[in-house]
Amino acid sequence: MSFATRLVQAVQKTKSVTCVGLDPRKASLPAPIREAVVNDRPDEWAAAYTQFCMEIIDAVAGIVPCVKPQAAFFEQLGPAGMISLGQVVAYAREKDLLVILDGKRNDIGSTATAYADAYLGADSPWQSDSLTVSPYLGRDSIEPFVEVCEKRAAGIFVLVKTSNPGGGLLQNRETDGQTVYARVAELVTEINADRLDSHGFGPIGAVVGATYPEELAELRQAMPHSWILIPGFGAQGGAADDVKAGFLDGGLGAVVNSSRHLIFAHKRPEFADKFGDAKWQDAVRAATEEMNSALNVVGGK
Amino acid sequence: MSFATRLVQAVQKTKSVTCVGLDPRKASLPAPIREAVVNDRPDEWAAAYTQFCMEIIDAVAGIVPCVKPQAAFFEQLGPAGMISLGQVVAYAREKDLLVILDGKRNDIGSTATAYADAYLGADSPWQSDSLTVSPYLGRDSIEPFVEVCEKRAAGIFVLVKTSNPGGGLLQNRETDGQTVYARVAELVTEINADRLDSHGFGPIGAVVGATYPEELAELRQAMPHSWILIPGFGAQGGAADDVKAGFLDGGLGAVVNSSRHLIFAHKRPEFADKFGDAKWQDAVRAATEEMNSALNVVGGK
Repeated sequence: MSFATRLVQAVQKTKSVTCVGLDPRKASLPAPIREAVVNDRPDEWAAAYTQFCMEIIDAVAGIVPCVKPQAAFFEQLGPAGMISLGQVVAYAREKDLLVILDGKRNDIGSTATAYADAYLGADSPWQSDSLTVSPYLGRDSIEPFVEVCEKRAAGIFVLVKTSNPGGGLLQNRETDGQTVYARVAELVTEINADRLDSHGFGPIGAVVGATYPEELAELRQAMPHSWILIPGFGAQGGAADDVKAGFLDGGLGAVVNSSRHLIFAHKRPEFADKFGDAKWQDAVRAATEEMNSALNVVGGK
Repeated sequence: MSFATRLVQAVQKTKSVTCVGLDPRKASLPAPIREAVVNDRPDEWAAAYTQFCMEIIDAVAGIVPCVKPQAAFFEQLGPAGMISLGQVVAYAREKDLLVILDGKRNDIGSTATAYADAYLGADSPWQSDSLTVSPYLGRDSIEPFVEVCEKRAAGIFVLVKTSNPGGGLLQNRETDGQTVYARVAELVTEINADRLDSHGFGPIGAVVGATYPEELAELRQAMPHSWILIPGFGAQGGAADDVKAGFLDGGLGAVVNSSRHLIFAHKRPEFADKFGDAKWQDAVRAATEEMNSALNVVGGK
């Protein structure tokens, strides 16, 4: 079953469009996790990251459709971190969560195929369900990923319009009335066109930030066959109203990511007193349920 | 000493502007290396990649300034491959070769910092001298890399105009007479401006493909303070005349990468008979010397 179809089913089953971002950071780990690191060695931190992410997965399994590990934080720990990443991906899949690996990889030709094989292929050491991909190198940097996706029913999310303030520098440049991000959206729709599942979704999703609601509405129209991954909710300032335009009629078509706001919820004023470090997992669950409720008003049913 | 300055010295010392791309691929490894893999396990392949790259490094140390490991091929082997990558980077640096890690990473804010720390930071497990970075996310995706670069005198190469046929889809789009790649070049020059070494080079280099000589000439002018990494020479079709425009007066300012054409030279008709698999290292050395000669006509002295 294709990745897009599996995401439809996961959203329907959990009645949630929340994606939980797994961004482990040394400085923000809850005390019980951090205390297990006694010698500041990479393998100790990697074990702490695995433990942290597994407990988050336990806290949110069944109430969200997917998780998004951020590769950079695992890579920062070196090879030990890459082992941890594999453990986290495997554990999430075991708990019936779809995995969107946020690696923003890209290259050309056979090198793009190597990245696709690395993270999505049949022999992939990480076996992610999907991967974020940067589009700067053009169509021939996207197609090798699509080929690998088709073989293992995996998916990719192409960066279209990112959530950061500086994203517009290149993405918003307009040529003959069409912005760069709109051109990327057109490309995504072209490649999806003859690869649709029974719900009308193709293997190529898109990343569109919650921080640009107008562009999100425009891009929802431009990519009718794409799942949209919407980052920038919560800590980056996006609110439920901002992401409304990302959904199709019926509430499918988008998942909204939050990382820090959920996984470090024990540090947020409204949860710190009630849960604190000792019950940080309960804070994750409460924050995730709160996000589910906020989003169910606008989409996701 | 800054990365840019070290590259000046390495080019002057070796009298070469050749960068040897380290792209290990299972199917193309010379027989003596491949035969050591008996059980098809990732750690065996990783050991083979390390051996292969170390022997290439031995063959070219002293006659080229730098090597460029392609991260994708190491990532394809999983955590074992990432260990191999670290061994290869360390060995190259031990042999006085500068390392340009081709990872095309990018992200925003603290995630970009995590990538920079991962590959270039003081505590980096890989300790590369420099890293390729994709610019789609804008200025705030580049600056965190620059900050880390300054702390450890490392460098980055931003993708400006890539060598693949499809690169133009986004890169060549023109707005008010300025292409996207020219806007990226302008950004690179802006960030370099107050960070120049005594030779006039800043920490931000650029990737410009050998396959577009006219754009290379334009970009050489637009980025007077950047080292340019020119891929696409050899197997991708670029020739010595095509890269001429990448050099500044005096022959500095660019290094030209070739991967397959050098590291798998034992498979090229002109070397196969003379060296073959048994003397593949001699083929690497001969092909590298040939490339040095070809390039010394146009730049590099």
